Amino acid sequence: MQPRIVEVRKDILRKNDEIARALRERFRQAGVCVVSLVSSPGAGKTTLLRATVEALVRKYRVGVLVGDLATDNDARRLEGLGARVQQIITGTVCHLEAEMVSKALEGWALADLDFLFIENVGNLVCPSSYDLGENVRAVLLSVTEGEDKPLKYPTIFNTADFAMITKIDLAGAVDLQRDDLYANLRAVRPAIEVLETSARTAQGLDAWIAKLERLRQT
Amino acid sequence: MQPRIVEVRKDILRKNDEIARALRERFRQAGVCVVSLVSSPGAGKTTLLRATVEALVRKYRVGVLVGDLATDNDARRLEGLGARVQQIITGTVCHLEAEMVSKALEGWALADLDFLFIENVGNLVCPSSYDLGENVRAVLLSVTEGEDKPLKYPTIFNTADFAMITKIDLAGAVDLQRDDLYANLRAVRPAIEVLETSARTAQGLDAWIAKLERLRQT
Repeated sequence: MQPRIVEVRKDILRKNDEIARALRERFRQAGVCVVSLVSSPGAGKTTLLRATVEALVRKYRVGVLVGDLATDNDARRLEGLGARVQQIITGTVCHLEAEMVSKALEGWALADLDFLFIENVGNLVCPSSYDLGENVRAVLLSVTEGEDKPLKYPTIFNTADFAMITKIDLAGAVDLQRDDLYANLRAVRPAIEVLETSARTAQGLDAWIAKLERLRQT
Repeated sequence: MQPRIVEVRKDILRKNDEIARALRERFRQAGVCVVSLVSSPGAGKTTLLRATVEALVRKYRVGVLVGDLATDNDARRLEGLGARVQQIITGTVCHLEAEMVSKALEGWALADLDFLFIENVGNLVCPSSYDLGENVRAVLLSVTEGEDKPLKYPTIFNTADFAMITKIDLAGAVDLQRDDLYANLRAVRPAIEVLETSARTAQGLDAWIAKLERLRQT
């Protein structure tokens, strides 16, 4: 049975890639900078997004799509900040697909946005195979998850453009072995850019916002 | 295309369920108590298993299967404790399947074991659909992941027999809202048994071992 599974999977991915390419072209023409966030459940994607939206809305027009199997908790956490927010409920699907993004954006005037953020389902495996048409994919890794995660989930780190180490304020509490973590990140993706952040202390947030502004220029 | 995907998925799950049932019968005949562990990446499955094996090997014969996409880090972390350990490398597959368990156990004399632990790939979505023939499935949830995870990943909590809240020593550092967490657990699975644990302070470990010993009697 294995060959049949692989074949169907290839079909799904090929179809996804086609939709993702069309999305990317739409985003380019509209001049919107699209950033997707992937991580384990609870690494801090929504918390980072809250701080990001709060900082960006002073100067930019921001939209956010948030994916989850169930609940619109994340959309509600992001409401009232001045960004347009849409929840995508995936049901039992463990990742976002380009078609879900495309459907969620129906009726949006993309040219009215400067930034669009896409928060994927919390999962270090499945999202890695699905291009969503984004310009940049950021992977978040909380210090509480352990230093070996890049080695155990190499694909998600290989497909990310940027790594954010979150909850850095807990580094002491979890006895983070920082050198090991960086060595493991670089073992799977030698040139990956890394930023240490804490939503609690706001460490790294200015650098992240500056990076987003640079991305928008390129 | 969606209907075809669903059909293949049903085939896969039906096949998995058949293999899982055969495994469960083998486990029953051999008199081995089989416990699987599921969680996000980094919630502490391997750390808990280390402590569990250390406690159990004084009185029992213990085997462990550990699943990961890549690396045999977890098997190496569990070596030298007196248990038989086998790593399952899934490649790009986001969960263990009954067939992987069956293959990993080739050559094992199950009747020589009192306990078999199966550590799934770190993932709160995909493992929920795959029966591995285990007697009991425990879901681990670290206090650092946030109180809302049961609501966002209801299936994995619905298919688990038992929930362990790990890293409870960090409850203060992350300002855990304990009442919210319990309310969310009970919202998706009203009768779920919950144990608070910390590998660092050994809190909850005795209760966990006592629970395993009771499970073995039933």
